[in-house]
Amino acid sequence: MAFFTNLLEESVIVKIGFVGIGQMGVGMVGNLLKAGHEVTVFNRSAEKIRPLVEAGAKAAARVAEACHGAAVFTMLADDAALESLALGEDGIVRHLGAGALHISCSTISVALSERLAAAHEGAGQAYVAAPVFGRPPAAAAAQLFVVAAGKPAAVAAAMPLFEAIGQKTFVVSDQPQLANLVKLSGNFLIGAMLESLGEAMALAEKGGVERRTWLEVMTSSIFNVPVYKIYGGLIAERKFEPAGFAAHLGLKDIRLALAAAEALRVPMPLGSMVRDRFLSLLANGGDALDWAAIGQLPAKDAGLG
Amino acid sequence: MAFFTNLLEESVIVKIGFVGIGQMGVGMVGNLLKAGHEVTVFNRSAEKIRPLVEAGAKAAARVAEACHGAAVFTMLADDAALESLALGEDGIVRHLGAGALHISCSTISVALSERLAAAHEGAGQAYVAAPVFGRPPAAAAAQLFVVAAGKPAAVAAAMPLFEAIGQKTFVVSDQPQLANLVKLSGNFLIGAMLESLGEAMALAEKGGVERRTWLEVMTSSIFNVPVYKIYGGLIAERKFEPAGFAAHLGLKDIRLALAAAEALRVPMPLGSMVRDRFLSLLANGGDALDWAAIGQLPAKDAGLG
Amino acid sequence: MAFFTNLLEESVIVKIGFVGIGQMGVGMVGNLLKAGHEVTVFNRSAEKIRPLVEAGAKAAARVAEACHGAAVFTMLADDAALESLALGEDGIVRHLGAGALHISCSTISVALSERLAAAHEGAGQAYVAAPVFGRPPAAAAAQLFVVAAGKPAAVAAAMPLFEAIGQKTFVVSDQPQLANLVKLSGNFLIGAMLESLGEAMALAEKGGVERRTWLEVMTSSIFNVPVYKIYGGLIAERKFEPAGFAAHLGLKDIRLALAAAEALRVPMPLGSMVRDRFLSLLANGGDALDWAAIGQLPAKDAGLG
Amino acid sequence: MAFFTNLLEESVIVKIGFVGIGQMGVGMVGNLLKAGHEVTVFNRSAEKIRPLVEAGAKAAARVAEACHGAAVFTMLADDAALESLALGEDGIVRHLGAGALHISCSTISVALSERLAAAHEGAGQAYVAAPVFGRPPAAAAAQLFVVAAGKPAAVAAAMPLFEAIGQKTFVVSDQPQLANLVKLSGNFLIGAMLESLGEAMALAEKGGVERRTWLEVMTSSIFNVPVYKIYGGLIAERKFEPAGFAAHLGLKDIRLALAAAEALRVPMPLGSMVRDRFLSLLANGGDALDWAAIGQLPAKDAGLG
Repeated sequence: MAFFTNLLEESVIVKIGFVGIGQMGVGMVGNLLKAGHEVTVFNRSAEKIRPLVEAGAKAAARVAEACHGAAVFTMLADDAALESLALGEDGIVRHLGAGALHISCSTISVALSERLAAAHEGAGQAYVAAPVFGRPPAAAAAQLFVVAAGKPAAVAAAMPLFEAIGQKTFVVSDQPQLANLVKLSGNFLIGAMLESLGEAMALAEKGGVERRTWLEVMTSSIFNVPVYKIYGGLIAERKFEPAGFAAHLGLKDIRLALAAAEALRVPMPLGSMVRDRFLSLLANGGDALDWAAIGQLPAKDAGLG
Repeated sequence: MAFFTNLLEESVIVKIGFVGIGQMGVGMVGNLLKAGHEVTVFNRSAEKIRPLVEAGAKAAARVAEACHGAAVFTMLADDAALESLALGEDGIVRHLGAGALHISCSTISVALSERLAAAHEGAGQAYVAAPVFGRPPAAAAAQLFVVAAGKPAAVAAAMPLFEAIGQKTFVVSDQPQLANLVKLSGNFLIGAMLESLGEAMALAEKGGVERRTWLEVMTSSIFNVPVYKIYGGLIAERKFEPAGFAAHLGLKDIRLALAAAEALRVPMPLGSMVRDRFLSLLANGGDALDWAAIGQLPAKDAGLG
Repeated sequence: MAFFTNLLEESVIVKIGFVGIGQMGVGMVGNLLKAGHEVTVFNRSAEKIRPLVEAGAKAAARVAEACHGAAVFTMLADDAALESLALGEDGIVRHLGAGALHISCSTISVALSERLAAAHEGAGQAYVAAPVFGRPPAAAAAQLFVVAAGKPAAVAAAMPLFEAIGQKTFVVSDQPQLANLVKLSGNFLIGAMLESLGEAMALAEKGGVERRTWLEVMTSSIFNVPVYKIYGGLIAERKFEPAGFAAHLGLKDIRLALAAAEALRVPMPLGSMVRDRFLSLLANGGDALDWAAIGQLPAKDAGLG
Repeated sequence: MAFFTNLLEESVIVKIGFVGIGQMGVGMVGNLLKAGHEVTVFNRSAEKIRPLVEAGAKAAARVAEACHGAAVFTMLADDAALESLALGEDGIVRHLGAGALHISCSTISVALSERLAAAHEGAGQAYVAAPVFGRPPAAAAAQLFVVAAGKPAAVAAAMPLFEAIGQKTFVVSDQPQLANLVKLSGNFLIGAMLESLGEAMALAEKGGVERRTWLEVMTSSIFNVPVYKIYGGLIAERKFEPAGFAAHLGLKDIRLALAAAEALRVPMPLGSMVRDRFLSLLANGGDALDWAAIGQLPAKDAGLG
């Protein structure tokens, strides 16, 4: 595939597209621009792309216009959005050039990732699944963790782009959908952590230990890592607004993890518990809250506020 | 309390006792000796104390002989052992001097800690609960985390001793039993982590991602902290022998956490799930395994060996 | 709607179709024939309908031929089968006469039932959801319980047919899909019972009480009802083959219940637990077993065979 | 043992004692009196025994006075009460005659039952564990189900007394404590049923099916048995006061079942779930409610009132 060779050899300026400019996408595009790439951006609601245009990006009026380069990124909210923009009649598969590359960063289902891989293969295009770990500030700071999977040549071609957006890239398989599986398993791990923090803090608090004191002990000793500090802090402070990652998206991700698990016949009782917490949160008015808010539910069950 | 003043003022050599020389105690006493303290050690099976005697400790034939100093540490396996040695007819409460200090490092129930506090108070003695986080290598390296609670003067008096055995001391309350509650909540947090790692690895593995690869991604990115690396490694390698911390002790700790929670009326469904995993492990021959072995059960449920 | 009037007035002989001749359908059609109705039957694999033809039914080569009467029953294994035969190009909605009635007895999703209702409404046809409780022997003996929902006139028209196949009909709503919701909730109730019986029997057995003795006590006293006796007996006897209702169908039903619950934002932790049991059973080779076999899993977790 | 022979041969009038006159005991004593027995009753608060004295019972001022006959029943609220009255210094074991029989009907722990059996054996007395299923109206109507275990001669001697208080007696083992295990497993089964009814009703209700309608369908079809009708009715009506069996007693029983299960290493995840529901209920002000009130918690989690 001549394209990939060129991409690697030149490596200086690559024309790429980027579809989906939300809290994450805006930072990622910013870093791609800083790395010297020509980026054409598309978003359903056009006003979000204005600051990026000011920073040097080109605005696309249709998805097709973002598909003329060597690669196109997608970073969308869910399966439905990506399916429509990638597999729809006027979508990416139809417009991307032969040999060009679709880098799919959204947190989507394993099943859709498999279908995308097949569709691109059928169209003579390349496909890499590359979901990321990190919240919007990490995206803005080019500090994401990229979990990539796909055919080796395609992954190699994408590597310089990953270096522009993240601090580290993990190549986990040559089957693209397994990157999505790893991403979903990681979000499950965070959801499980939220439940464990919520239960432990309810116990400590009702026993008479102040929540912040308890968290300080844990995160200065055995759990001395930002993910515990940040989420534990949100739970201890009961600070769930504004949402960095909304509860309904948390439910979506755990649902996708459980769907993959069901297809593989892997029971995940803790996964089920986390899912049920999200349902309870959303059933009681938590739509606008950060997903960390499930960590408050054990306290409610314990009769604490 | 004159003793505490003296203890703090002199601060050079303090005569202390240490009851319970297991994998943890041996390291802790070693570090107390290195710090210049005179340590009289007692253990039920006497041969374990020989290396400490060679290192300068005095051997006690009875608990009483370990109670003649300014303070006595206890580091025992469970409630029954501590209750017998502290509250029994020939025990610590009977023999400890007025104003002297009992530093209780064992992972015991909140209820027993409360009873000990009352007994020492009644005898004109001081009592600090000071359970520790860390496995035997951390004890040997004076790298424990000490979670202390008790009356401020008693905690202050114990502080130089904590500095000899640990890297950091957290004072969480003036009610001693709350240190035990924090310790138990921390062990619950580890148990919950084991379950989450086990489920996620079963999902990844059955999907086609090698366990070690998966763990490398997680612990090089969002969960970059030793507790995930070490325990995750044990699960990924299926290396549960020899046990660093045996499964039956894990069950004991989660039972104590749930007992405290029940007394406080705090439902902990994830705690219950972890407890049930330990029962399943022990019912199927896992007595000799490290408690991390519960992390293998989700794989078995998923039909993976 | 003239049809319904006629149906009720004549009430003697009604021409109907029946699509889906499995273990349940064969008994239901037999009873419709006995009640004097003219029944045209369709099944994908034609050999299953031979005994019914001998009993007086007409064989349809295509679904369309089963759609020429006043009503057509469907009794199929899952959503996919019904969707294809009802909504497919050559399906029931296309061929059923104006004013004629589709009586949908399959255990399907709430969502598909809603879509069917809308499709029939759009085609000027009537639709009643009428899932049933009862296993094949009850179907053969006209002892089913029918849970019906739909517009009152349509339900009224179907009533004589329900009387031919069941011992009792419950009309739960004028929204057809709510009959499906009730049916799914009932199957969840049975699944929950299986789990409770399995756990209690594991406890009793490991304690030293023989399983059959234990079951005799329970089902001769507070749980004196066939559903506990029959399923409890299967668990006590470890008799899971041949399957009266296969485990993968049990998983399907609990999945549909949980899907409806998720759409409504109703957490069902016990439903999740039952679902995870089915996954564990199927992951460990239980595809061919009766769904009661999840009741053996607690014994395995307890180290009993 | 001459006593048992006599008891069986005469069978007409037996002098017995009865310790513990609560909602259950009052009905049981009434029926023993009706059967012609001489009953001496003891209760901590004496005013409760007045109606029984009017009906022919003798009042005992001390436990000892209830121990002079051929047998003494106990029907007490929990382990602590029975332990004190049976094993205490002035208790039943001390005062019961050689060869006389203690019939223990309380719902107590397996462990206490074992200790009582040993104590009576050591004192040359007989002991039968005979917990009962049934609520106060069943006790009044002599419609209890008696679950009995003990040495065959002792059980045989007690049989005429069981006939006076119940509709059916099940002899499950010659080890007394196994009757307690069966009783606890049965209460677990009811607790599990409450959870399943609560979840299913929350699903049905939020979907649009009225709770009473839903319950009518279930309990007129597959779950046509009083225990589902009565408890389901309490949940459907949200009628949890006055308590027929208080929530804190429900927690006690499930705790005892789980304690027996833990000793036997039997994981009971549904048992754990039910226990956590009781904790949640009690943490949120449900002390005075009937234990059926845990069946309302799924609706609250679903955002229904």
